[in-house]
Amino acid sequence: MSISPFDHPFLSGLLGDAEISDYFSATADIRAMLDFEAALARVEAQHGLIPQASARRIEEICASFEPDLSSLKAATATDGVVVPDLVKQLRKAVGEDAGTHVHFGATSQDVIDTSLMMRLKAVAFLLSGRLFTVSAGLQKLDKQFGSNRLMGRTRMQAAIPITVSDRLRAWRHPLEQYRDRLTQESFALQFGGAAGTLEKFGPRAEDIRASLAQALGLTDEPQWQSQRGRIAELAGLLSMISGSLGKIGQDVALLAQAGDEIELAGGGGSSAMPHKQNPVAAEMLVTLARFNAVQLSGIHQSLVHEQERSGAAWTLEWLLLPQMAVATAASLRHALELIGMIKRLGTAA
Amino acid sequence: MSISPFDHPFLSGLLGDAEISDYFSATADIRAMLDFEAALARVEAQHGLIPQASARRIEEICASFEPDLSSLKAATATDGVVVPDLVKQLRKAVGEDAGTHVHFGATSQDVIDTSLMMRLKAVAFLLSGRLFTVSAGLQKLDKQFGSNRLMGRTRMQAAIPITVSDRLRAWRHPLEQYRDRLTQESFALQFGGAAGTLEKFGPRAEDIRASLAQALGLTDEPQWQSQRGRIAELAGLLSMISGSLGKIGQDVALLAQAGDEIELAGGGGSSAMPHKQNPVAAEMLVTLARFNAVQLSGIHQSLVHEQERSGAAWTLEWLLLPQMAVATAASLRHALELIGMIKRLGTAA
Amino acid sequence: MSISPFDHPFLSGLLGDAEISDYFSATADIRAMLDFEAALARVEAQHGLIPQASARRIEEICASFEPDLSSLKAATATDGVVVPDLVKQLRKAVGEDAGTHVHFGATSQDVIDTSLMMRLKAVAFLLSGRLFTVSAGLQKLDKQFGSNRLMGRTRMQAAIPITVSDRLRAWRHPLEQYRDRLTQESFALQFGGAAGTLEKFGPRAEDIRASLAQALGLTDEPQWQSQRGRIAELAGLLSMISGSLGKIGQDVALLAQAGDEIELAGGGGSSAMPHKQNPVAAEMLVTLARFNAVQLSGIHQSLVHEQERSGAAWTLEWLLLPQMAVATAASLRHALELIGMIKRLGTAA
Amino acid sequence: MSISPFDHPFLSGLLGDAEISDYFSATADIRAMLDFEAALARVEAQHGLIPQASARRIEEICASFEPDLSSLKAATATDGVVVPDLVKQLRKAVGEDAGTHVHFGATSQDVIDTSLMMRLKAVAFLLSGRLFTVSAGLQKLDKQFGSNRLMGRTRMQAAIPITVSDRLRAWRHPLEQYRDRLTQESFALQFGGAAGTLEKFGPRAEDIRASLAQALGLTDEPQWQSQRGRIAELAGLLSMISGSLGKIGQDVALLAQAGDEIELAGGGGSSAMPHKQNPVAAEMLVTLARFNAVQLSGIHQSLVHEQERSGAAWTLEWLLLPQMAVATAASLRHALELIGMIKRLGTAA
Repeated sequence: MSISPFDHPFLSGLLGDAEISDYFSATADIRAMLDFEAALARVEAQHGLIPQASARRIEEICASFEPDLSSLKAATATDGVVVPDLVKQLRKAVGEDAGTHVHFGATSQDVIDTSLMMRLKAVAFLLSGRLFTVSAGLQKLDKQFGSNRLMGRTRMQAAIPITVSDRLRAWRHPLEQYRDRLTQESFALQFGGAAGTLEKFGPRAEDIRASLAQALGLTDEPQWQSQRGRIAELAGLLSMISGSLGKIGQDVALLAQAGDEIELAGGGGSSAMPHKQNPVAAEMLVTLARFNAVQLSGIHQSLVHEQERSGAAWTLEWLLLPQMAVATAASLRHALELIGMIKRLGTAA
Repeated sequence: MSISPFDHPFLSGLLGDAEISDYFSATADIRAMLDFEAALARVEAQHGLIPQASARRIEEICASFEPDLSSLKAATATDGVVVPDLVKQLRKAVGEDAGTHVHFGATSQDVIDTSLMMRLKAVAFLLSGRLFTVSAGLQKLDKQFGSNRLMGRTRMQAAIPITVSDRLRAWRHPLEQYRDRLTQESFALQFGGAAGTLEKFGPRAEDIRASLAQALGLTDEPQWQSQRGRIAELAGLLSMISGSLGKIGQDVALLAQAGDEIELAGGGGSSAMPHKQNPVAAEMLVTLARFNAVQLSGIHQSLVHEQERSGAAWTLEWLLLPQMAVATAASLRHALELIGMIKRLGTAA
Repeated sequence: MSISPFDHPFLSGLLGDAEISDYFSATADIRAMLDFEAALARVEAQHGLIPQASARRIEEICASFEPDLSSLKAATATDGVVVPDLVKQLRKAVGEDAGTHVHFGATSQDVIDTSLMMRLKAVAFLLSGRLFTVSAGLQKLDKQFGSNRLMGRTRMQAAIPITVSDRLRAWRHPLEQYRDRLTQESFALQFGGAAGTLEKFGPRAEDIRASLAQALGLTDEPQWQSQRGRIAELAGLLSMISGSLGKIGQDVALLAQAGDEIELAGGGGSSAMPHKQNPVAAEMLVTLARFNAVQLSGIHQSLVHEQERSGAAWTLEWLLLPQMAVATAASLRHALELIGMIKRLGTAA
Repeated sequence: MSISPFDHPFLSGLLGDAEISDYFSATADIRAMLDFEAALARVEAQHGLIPQASARRIEEICASFEPDLSSLKAATATDGVVVPDLVKQLRKAVGEDAGTHVHFGATSQDVIDTSLMMRLKAVAFLLSGRLFTVSAGLQKLDKQFGSNRLMGRTRMQAAIPITVSDRLRAWRHPLEQYRDRLTQESFALQFGGAAGTLEKFGPRAEDIRASLAQALGLTDEPQWQSQRGRIAELAGLLSMISGSLGKIGQDVALLAQAGDEIELAGGGGSSAMPHKQNPVAAEMLVTLARFNAVQLSGIHQSLVHEQERSGAAWTLEWLLLPQMAVATAASLRHALELIGMIKRLGTAA
């Protein structure tokens, strides 16, 4: 199926991002969820809550377990979450004795939110790297063309001449700030049990949580299952990245329309006019910026997350956040490509 | 890949809709685009613009042509649209003589927008049918429980008693209006050529357009390539459907939470609390309503569609509209399921 | 105060609309609410529900009653709606005997939603008139410059030449459709009583509702207090109007930037560059289009209107709809002004 | 006029916020803009760019200048910004000699964006204080009722018992984080001149900018006129605050509906049912959360801010940001009121 262009057999070439999409595949999600279950068992055995043998068996199975996807799909349709069936399948694979120790004290949201955090941490690292590359590309343009003259334009009208450096600084500066921000994001374990109180662990709850966070390479924080600010924060940053890249795209499309202050290699072909060179990458930056600006609204709607867990608000995030991440990634990809296509910027001073 | 839950190996069980998704598959799109090219050739031959033999050859090839998807994907990445490469592949398959007559006088947007309209027409018909079924399900509930007492609630507080019929009318009435509206939507051919003027056809342009519309079962209207009101109109209707179903979902979730005025069969299981019966279908109605309300904003942003064709604004629609259609379909699916789960509503008067 | 530019001492010159704003003033709202109470009393007396003398007294007082605004403000802060205090003040002014017959069988939402419908009906009429004037202005431009040559532009690149007529048709056509749509909108009385069942009126409820609708010049329909589709429908139409005007604005701004295919009189001054002529009206069309596209999302969120009356969802409409109406009005105002500024379009063929 | 409830004669009692609104009044804006012009003259005199006497005269006039508002309004309608006319009026008031030194080297956006930053800085300080008070109120509730039992609810269903403390922690924790974030926001001078290059100041540009920032109590940063990330960042934080308060409101409304686990004093009256106690403050928290979530989308759309200054994108911010700030303030006000109304939470353990 291919309802979203990000997942589409041919549109994903334009709008998708193979590298980042992998982190939002079912395979990657299942892998991270099994890592959670394995680490949970290991930590619980370390704290004497379940037998060491059970933990070893659970870890061993988790390392290579491949759940029945059609069963997961059918169960998710009823349960609203994949975890009950995944745990059921996993328990069966682990076997009778150790199986009862799988998922002890955890709940679906612990598994799903933590899997998301593990993958977002990796995604943030990659996006940060791309921000660096785009920024470096802009610096290179600055070295080549920085002293060229560019007509400064305000309110869509010629104002006074500026230099190419002036424009490039306005393009680059926000990206460097976002990179700093991405680096400062913390990706926290979600671990709360049935209603956020880790009621199965008594006074050892915080120790176990800390061990689990460490085992998974995540920050240790109290459960945040109904506190979605960290999702809104990260989504806002993604939209700021694509938004500032959208400004670059809009600027390039306007330069390309006027035609005298930029020289672009490549560009898209037309079925009716083979001679045209469409600034497709520049347009896509605008598209993806507006797309993320739209989605962000839904992420903030889901801050109204009632009680200890809102099925409605939480599921809304699933429909929005992965697409925002891929849109941001595609946006960085197009920005890099577009920078590479610029053969001249401004006019010799 | 599976960035969108609508396309996802297991989440699509919950949030997707197999029947409607098919209309947004690459396969269905390509099929409709080839139908466009075949009908165009046939109509052009009828009007003496291309040889009858060419048209027959084009039709014959279109009927079974399977384009190279990896080539389409690579070309779309550059061109921003799939049509130039599709036409190139098609011309090659058609062969030297007739190949030059493929796609004569048309442009990418004609093919893509028309393919969308053909499929949306079919989708609207199916959604209309589901609205009827949901409405019938509500009428059946009315027959069973209509005279039962229900506490009328305003501002989340008990107000005065009403009947179950009163509540059901408020649920059903909008759905019937939306069904009427869906039936009245017109799905129009888009046919304008390079810049909307059908410049290749001279005085015969309108006749050819009318013939083409008829051949494809669409309404004949002047090109609307930069006039996206019809997209906004339809998207608004989709969001109104899911919005009114979201109201039903919210009402059922509130009834289920209080517990005394509703009896629900089924419901989703929990990984931590096997005894729980979660009103998952009701929650999903709220989720999908809020999702569509968010996306609609982007569709209206894309009304600012500059000049004769905006790559940026047009592509934004692709990221939003198919998902809105599937969200609406999934919403109708959940509504029907939820109605079937209601074993009692209200309390005996 | 002046948090919204629509209400602002100096920004309202740019972004507001004096004529349409009047309909959303507290004065106009109170006037319409008192008209509702007067008509309700008259109709109830006609149907023998309250004494004729009481109705006459209520009508007489309503005709000139000026409530204490500071009391209304303080009470609204607590009650969430203005009506309880307005009715209390009105009862006191009407006096002991007749006062008990004020507001009989009605509830706050009846008064507020009906007042809104009365005013929206008038607003729709005025907006329809403006759409006609804008459309006529575009037709006049067509007569003057229609045969001029304009470069057709797709994806922000020169495509093939078109005529000014071709572009103007794409601007005008949607506006004519929206005008037809506005004319077809029905503005319905909201009358349901405490929980939508008109429980005070027994079998005469529908007759009284029909009489009241007629008295107020509104369509008679069953209560729609929790069915907000009609609000979403109208809001969608407003956003489609401003959206299509936004396309005109964007096109003019792009023409003005290139400079060779348009000649504009007037334009805004700059504090740093007195020579500049900024296409302010064109920019505002884009701004207002994007503003409405954003607000529409919230209107659709409020379709999830729980139970018999949602304080949360209903109040959200109040924060969005009046601004959307004024934004649309301001947009039509700017469009008309902008058309008047066009001294030349295209280049002589 | 009163198109926005935030500015409305009676609705502002419910939805407005007198204290914060003052900062977005035309008066406060003009005051801050005159402070900018005064500080600019003083700094320019210090750097020897304009005569000391001129600076003294400009400062003296600015201290008490009251511009003609109707002239400002008329000019803003044409210019799109208030500054050209304000400067013109100010120059006239300053007189012939010194008048020519008013606004030297600055542009409209410098004045308007800097005025906004000055006022947002004060607003952020006040909102931070309110976050502290709300947080303290929640801590007080924790002391009173923390050990009480509350039914933990997930997916709108009873899960397992938790304590009132558990719930209160989920309410309070995000607010404390937002308060830290607010405190870390930097509010930067915008100073760029006609096209962002401070072209009138040559090598002294950065020194002058630093002096001006210091004079106005703002952070010194390079011009950010087309880099709107700082606006998006702050708007996101505002929406996160109201969003997390919306979660509290939704939780309280649900508790109030069930009725057994909360005791609320006060509440709103009904015109049809005098006995009802509507949880109006709780509902408003949900309304304001959803309102801000909607507006944020528009702020992010305006990140696509073309070239050196976009009239369209910039003006869109004006329509959104002040309302977001007041919505957040009103939200904090309602939260504090709501906390004060809680007479009991949970059931004695």
